[in-house]
Amino acid sequence: MKIAVDVMGGDYAPSAIIEGTAIALKDFSDIELVLVGHLGKISFYLEKFGLARHPRVSLVHAEEVVEMKDASIVTLRSKKNSSISVAARLMKNGEVDAIVSVGHTGAAVAATNVIVKPLPGVDRAPLASVMPAIGGHFILLDAGANTDCKALHLAQFAIMGETYCKHILGVENPTVGLLSIGEEDSKGNDLTKEAFKLLSKMPINFAGNVEGNDLFIKTTDVVVCDGFVGNVLIKACESLAGAINHWMKDVFTKNPVRKTGAILARSAFKDLKAIADAEEYGGIPLLGLNGICIIGHGSSNPKAVRNAIRTCTESVRKRINEKIMARIEESGMTFKNIQSSEAN
Amino acid sequence: MKIAVDVMGGDYAPSAIIEGTAIALKDFSDIELVLVGHLGKISFYLEKFGLARHPRVSLVHAEEVVEMKDASIVTLRSKKNSSISVAARLMKNGEVDAIVSVGHTGAAVAATNVIVKPLPGVDRAPLASVMPAIGGHFILLDAGANTDCKALHLAQFAIMGETYCKHILGVENPTVGLLSIGEEDSKGNDLTKEAFKLLSKMPINFAGNVEGNDLFIKTTDVVVCDGFVGNVLIKACESLAGAINHWMKDVFTKNPVRKTGAILARSAFKDLKAIADAEEYGGIPLLGLNGICIIGHGSSNPKAVRNAIRTCTESVRKRINEKIMARIEESGMTFKNIQSSEAN
Repeated sequence: MKIAVDVMGGDYAPSAIIEGTAIALKDFSDIELVLVGHLGKISFYLEKFGLARHPRVSLVHAEEVVEMKDASIVTLRSKKNSSISVAARLMKNGEVDAIVSVGHTGAAVAATNVIVKPLPGVDRAPLASVMPAIGGHFILLDAGANTDCKALHLAQFAIMGETYCKHILGVENPTVGLLSIGEEDSKGNDLTKEAFKLLSKMPINFAGNVEGNDLFIKTTDVVVCDGFVGNVLIKACESLAGAINHWMKDVFTKNPVRKTGAILARSAFKDLKAIADAEEYGGIPLLGLNGICIIGHGSSNPKAVRNAIRTCTESVRKRINEKIMARIEESGMTFKNIQSSEAN
Repeated sequence: MKIAVDVMGGDYAPSAIIEGTAIALKDFSDIELVLVGHLGKISFYLEKFGLARHPRVSLVHAEEVVEMKDASIVTLRSKKNSSISVAARLMKNGEVDAIVSVGHTGAAVAATNVIVKPLPGVDRAPLASVMPAIGGHFILLDAGANTDCKALHLAQFAIMGETYCKHILGVENPTVGLLSIGEEDSKGNDLTKEAFKLLSKMPINFAGNVEGNDLFIKTTDVVVCDGFVGNVLIKACESLAGAINHWMKDVFTKNPVRKTGAILARSAFKDLKAIADAEEYGGIPLLGLNGICIIGHGSSNPKAVRNAIRTCTESVRKRINEKIMARIEESGMTFKNIQSSEAN
């Protein structure tokens, strides 16, 4: 199994990324890694983490680096030799099975969609984020890859989410919810009302609308929404969790008694942090592409990179893409099908 | 000043609502309240809280009650004599200056929009939610009144939010942000990209796009979005805060040492709760209607009802509607204007 790692992207690149690949190589003996980046800029770190002459590491030079401020689609055209574009071409040519990137999400989405392309039957590749909730995790998709969606896209997201949930997370017969603003099928916006009708007809375990207030008590295993809503939501929740953390520090240090209490209970704060710990999840898959692509958080540390690589290996080993293609076909939710049924 | 209170809606109706009105009558000597509800069902509580023969209380009978499971628009037609519809008619006829309801939000939005109608120049009335953030509060609107919006609606929300923020919350020259998924004007969905152009031309302090991750560090005083996104967001954040609270209880009671710590720091937990305490905010205004309408949380207790009435008095006293009309006119952001500029 060959995995390309974009070592140039992310807040702590290339050091944290390269260190993470070194850990992954130790932990997973059946993988080969192709590190894609500016060789001049990474050689120091390759030496430092013992990867310069590693038997399971090959290096591919990428002259350009995508900056966080770059616009995704412009990057694709103006920086043809960016590390993410080079990695995408390796995947397109069948030289690697999977890609890991913790850099500019938009650039990774654009490069893989344009260069690697979606699977047959898939119209849009969604980002599937695993989220913590009371009573277990749920998958939210699309977490930000596609801003303006049609009902068919949401239907396909449902299938991809359900398939991922079943085969990668091991959930038997996963339930699927549609993110909306009321439980009844009459509630929602034009998009969700249309999607509700499609989802109701599909051979999935559709549980109807899921409201925002039910999200973190885990109402369904999979929650479907468009990428604008998903992205705003995930980022806002991250922001709120950060604010609560800030307020906690504030209130627990206000006087010596509280401080003593906080010291006694300090391991509780650690437990609390661990619940939402992004490092553990190992990145967010961009589902439905002609190859496996895992996107990590920009702030990924070595452990998070190692876990993103682990997520890749699971997806490759369990042939998730074959399963997605089969399920999409089975569901009849392809553009061709919908078009011909509308023509009749 | 006359305020109609729908005493039938909400999780703890009519008891908590009537108790709240009794507190408001004591605290605000210049108000008269019109309690709208099923007189047979509320007489016990009127006696209990000393309102049966109160000089500043009048009673209006409403035969029907909107249930939480009722669909908003159906309710309006099939339950013409629901407490919220009766209250809306009182406002339409100029018999009251304001309405308070903590019941079915959708029903209140529908009844006031259809019966009371928006102000001249306003096309959609948004719910404006005051949210806590590090560094102060911000107003998010629309928080759920209008699911499918056009750019012009968002532009009008911006003006209404800015006007409310200035005159009611006392913020000099409030900044306005557009909720989106990237800072640049090129980022977002079709709606926000279009809205970005309008907002940039307006005589407001527009600060550009605000991302989800900036929300709770207070990037701007006002944040504008469509009602679907706003509603999902607010409810999801409420749900996440609830989940974090649940996890906190979990981790702080895991062993005796942590428990002792938690007991020492127990006042800190109270402080933390107070930050997000919905009771304090006194309900969410439904802005841009021919009258003042304040919607409270379904779980409103007497204090929250009292504060919702307080919010009403501020809006009436500060003639917020006149200011909104003037600002909408000034901005040129009316449907008529936009239409004629498109025709030219």
